[in-house]
Amino acid sequence: MTIKSESVSLEDARRIVAAGEAKADEIGQPSNIAVVDVGGNLVAHVRMDGAWIGSVDISINKAFTSRAFDTSTGDLAADAGPGGQFFGINASNGGRVMIFAGGVPLRIGDRVVGAVGVSGGSGEQDRLVAEAAAAAL
Amino acid sequence: MTIKSESVSLEDARRIVAAGEAKADEIGQPSNIAVVDVGGNLVAHVRMDGAWIGSVDISINKAFTSRAFDTSTGDLAADAGPGGQFFGINASNGGRVMIFAGGVPLRIGDRVVGAVGVSGGSGEQDRLVAEAAAAAL
Amino acid sequence: MTIKSESVSLEDARRIVAAGEAKADEIGQPSNIAVVDVGGNLVAHVRMDGAWIGSVDISINKAFTSRAFDTSTGDLAADAGPGGQFFGINASNGGRVMIFAGGVPLRIGDRVVGAVGVSGGSGEQDRLVAEAAAAAL
Amino acid sequence: MTIKSESVSLEDARRIVAAGEAKADEIGQPSNIAVVDVGGNLVAHVRMDGAWIGSVDISINKAFTSRAFDTSTGDLAADAGPGGQFFGINASNGGRVMIFAGGVPLRIGDRVVGAVGVSGGSGEQDRLVAEAAAAAL
Repeated sequence: MTIKSESVSLEDARRIVAAGEAKADEIGQPSNIAVVDVGGNLVAHVRMDGAWIGSVDISINKAFTSRAFDTSTGDLAADAGPGGQFFGINASNGGRVMIFAGGVPLRIGDRVVGAVGVSGGSGEQDRLVAEAAAAAL
Repeated sequence: MTIKSESVSLEDARRIVAAGEAKADEIGQPSNIAVVDVGGNLVAHVRMDGAWIGSVDISINKAFTSRAFDTSTGDLAADAGPGGQFFGINASNGGRVMIFAGGVPLRIGDRVVGAVGVSGGSGEQDRLVAEAAAAAL
Repeated sequence: MTIKSESVSLEDARRIVAAGEAKADEIGQPSNIAVVDVGGNLVAHVRMDGAWIGSVDISINKAFTSRAFDTSTGDLAADAGPGGQFFGINASNGGRVMIFAGGVPLRIGDRVVGAVGVSGGSGEQDRLVAEAAAAAL
Repeated sequence: MTIKSESVSLEDARRIVAAGEAKADEIGQPSNIAVVDVGGNLVAHVRMDGAWIGSVDISINKAFTSRAFDTSTGDLAADAGPGGQFFGINASNGGRVMIFAGGVPLRIGDRVVGAVGVSGGSGEQDRLVAEAAAAAL
């Protein structure tokens, strides 16, 4: 008995990215925004003009992380520090696990169908942009 | 005395990606399409629905390669085989150098301002899509 | 509409490196000194006689980090520890993000045109050498 | 009984790099030029204005390779192709072994004291620049 899954399409990803860009413009923080599908693989990425080049990788990997563990990276952070139950998890997966805010799962009901990752500003700004993006699913 | 340079913007990258998608649709080959700026850093990426997940990395790195050496990856291929003057170049740059067709520099006159990379089909299909994309600069 | 940018030249990089060497001599701490351009790519590196071989990579990556996030690596350090908003950022970008002092952006007015990275001594020494280097732009 | 060794200094490396730059200017091919010491560790690197960004890594690793095996990378190429006695060697050392022309050992008599690596043009151009550089030791 195979497993059926459901994933964001490129069209969905574009709508999600556009919503993130609108929020990033509103708060005046050029950002990198990435969307991954249900398999954790990249569907779309944009770097807004003026956004950090070091955040290309971070946005993509925040999205990967959120789908990889079906959690926001901000929530993961709470368990990933010294003494936390997942301390050191960021060394797993070839260094792709990001443990600071800005990655959010994309859900339809209780099913995760992908994730969005944002990097470009403070942790709080990245979280705001990612949540605005995710809301557009 | 600093150096002035010129680079594709996100708006440019979107137009380039859209032209690539149109060509990919026309030839019936879902593709990954990536655009890098003059510094070789990613500006935008899309994976069309149904395109290979292994081609995410390849499209991004074909674009990187084309800017890194200001050449099409198809032309680089001719020198990168056994006995060629650049044999083994694909092991450089942490494995990011792609030596098969689908990466094309973006030029304004004789200046390179970025590059596009396409992966999804045969070498010939990738080259066609990349050239259609680059023509939209 | 393309984006115009401005970057350090090799001539600039040499002047910056020379100023860093002069400061390193003054404080008696042989250092590695690296300069990257606006795209984060290496323009020049020197390892002064007697400087640590492990600092080759660190100096280059401090320079990369400062341009990648348009910040000094010392300032980034404040946010990158346990509980900080960027905790774990050093695992991103393939391990190239350095989160201790010695990397400084190179600015003309409010534009970043590259960055310098220094490694060889204490954090305080590296910061001093990097700032003396950057002042020579 | 310890082993005494002899290595290029930063002053030597600068003279070597300058000689390489002069040759690169003469043949009109902006190049990356790197010098490593007797331990295979980087002493100095320059990227001439307009030289390929993908050649930063290649120049450094051609120099590393020449010292790692005390041979020119052009000579190594002859043994590194399909059927050759070192076929596949370029996958060793984490991908740092370059098997095309442009890396040359630096010798005093029969002792190797470092190496120079050049990348920027054709294999023949890189070899010419590297040999001119090495002659300045």
